[in-house]
Amino acid sequence: MRYDIAVIGTGPAGVSAAVTAKVRNKSVLLLGSGELTGKLVAGHAILNYPGLPGITGDGLADALRRHLEAMEIAVTEEKISAVYAMGDYFALQGRAEVPYEAAAVIIACGVTADKPLPGEEENLGHGVSYCATCDAPLYRGKKVAVVAWSPAEEQEAAFLAEVCSEVLYFPQYEGPVGLPAEVQVLRRRIVSLGTAETEAAPAPQPGAFSLSLGGPPREMTLTDADGETWRAACVFVLRDAVAPAQLVPGLAADGGHVAVDLQMRTNIPGCFACGDVAGTPYQYVKAAGQGNVAALSAVSYLAAQKTK
Amino acid sequence: MRYDIAVIGTGPAGVSAAVTAKVRNKSVLLLGSGELTGKLVAGHAILNYPGLPGITGDGLADALRRHLEAMEIAVTEEKISAVYAMGDYFALQGRAEVPYEAAAVIIACGVTADKPLPGEEENLGHGVSYCATCDAPLYRGKKVAVVAWSPAEEQEAAFLAEVCSEVLYFPQYEGPVGLPAEVQVLRRRIVSLGTAETEAAPAPQPGAFSLSLGGPPREMTLTDADGETWRAACVFVLRDAVAPAQLVPGLAADGGHVAVDLQMRTNIPGCFACGDVAGTPYQYVKAAGQGNVAALSAVSYLAAQKTK
Repeated sequence: MRYDIAVIGTGPAGVSAAVTAKVRNKSVLLLGSGELTGKLVAGHAILNYPGLPGITGDGLADALRRHLEAMEIAVTEEKISAVYAMGDYFALQGRAEVPYEAAAVIIACGVTADKPLPGEEENLGHGVSYCATCDAPLYRGKKVAVVAWSPAEEQEAAFLAEVCSEVLYFPQYEGPVGLPAEVQVLRRRIVSLGTAETEAAPAPQPGAFSLSLGGPPREMTLTDADGETWRAACVFVLRDAVAPAQLVPGLAADGGHVAVDLQMRTNIPGCFACGDVAGTPYQYVKAAGQGNVAALSAVSYLAAQKTK
Repeated sequence: MRYDIAVIGTGPAGVSAAVTAKVRNKSVLLLGSGELTGKLVAGHAILNYPGLPGITGDGLADALRRHLEAMEIAVTEEKISAVYAMGDYFALQGRAEVPYEAAAVIIACGVTADKPLPGEEENLGHGVSYCATCDAPLYRGKKVAVVAWSPAEEQEAAFLAEVCSEVLYFPQYEGPVGLPAEVQVLRRRIVSLGTAETEAAPAPQPGAFSLSLGGPPREMTLTDADGETWRAACVFVLRDAVAPAQLVPGLAADGGHVAVDLQMRTNIPGCFACGDVAGTPYQYVKAAGQGNVAALSAVSYLAAQKTK
């Protein structure tokens, strides 16, 4: 099924976008956490969400959830690791092999306080991956590592264990970890990634002509806070949120946020952004307002596509 | 008293701006109608104000009013006819002779569906006025006309009757009109304004050198839907909302709206705009979101002014 509009994120921006898209009779795929809490600080009183004076974060999450229910909008519990512009539609890579499809996409995934690890961005696509589903086949029979910020990633590690020869799992969160016995769980805080030549690499022969385009064979290194290191063919870095520029290849940024205009358009036609990911201030009602605008801009985009 | 922030308008944008400014401990002057309805269509169900599913216009107005009460923000019932940038503060001309003062201004006055009358904008400041308080002294002892869209303007006409020799009052609204006996009430729909040489003007003398910079003495004409005309030295055109470009001299427009950036800044430092007046879509939560952003931008502006 190809949806009219996919909305990535279930904070106030994403909920607002989904609600307005539904009001405009569009088919909506709302992707994220059904808890809607995310950045809504649970007990904290929100003084300036107009019409709901002094509501708590929990209360606002409840109100948004009731709104979705009243509009019969379901949340699809999913983390999207990549969005690809395919011309007249977008492919959204989730945990399943077959991507979701939508004619327009609204990015409302918020911002993550986590900075990339040193060595992470430089090696993305060359030893660092954000998506086990996408990249596991490339590392069949090899040793891989997973650095994960949420228990939801354990199923990714379990899947990797079916394909790879060895899986090191570094949970960056507290609490129990439930994984198959063949996954090695290492409770270490990873502070940086790097590369090293593979131990098995043949010593370079002086004067020999190398056919390897990627230089000498190498593998990734992981270093923890104590300076201990591990090696793996690939490091899967799995956070709650993927940085927008990595989520959507080619998406223009503006100082760490997705660059948008007043209509919440990004540089990619059919792709809109709203809420924290689209810039400061990080405020609930600002996010909700931008979600509304993004949805109506997506509706206009779809109408224009139809007349083409 | 000089306020930190003056907010013009009491729709969702203005209320949101006032609430956030108050949260940030600024002194706030909120100007507009205490009814908060304005463009909130009373019985109509609003489906996409996140957190308040299916609320009516009346219900949202009530919710916003309760929010203002909870934050102890009073509405000053006032119509601002002009805002002047005075350097380090703004002067806001209301009905009283002494203007209000604020260090920053947020324009949230919405849009009016009323188009200017033909002949109105061309003669603004030269026979057409939007402010009886400001311009009545210029027409002392003369005959003036008032074209009014709201009973609130009757006090303007009564004031003019104290100063001018004759006042014609053209209510463009239904219902009773309560005015002193010396005001002539004419229930006619005015469709255009124009100019004519005054009847008392001397015939031009061939070859005579004219010292009059303004050309021959002239007066305004008013024409109704039946083609009947009246004359007056000045026509006071009094609508619920003043067009933003006339409200704030020098304010840059963008296709009929106030030009703003993503932080709701206008081209005038310290002057911000939000809600319908700042562009489409005309949506409640979009307005509320922009009000929030405008208030925080005003707070930043005030902080930067202090360090100068």
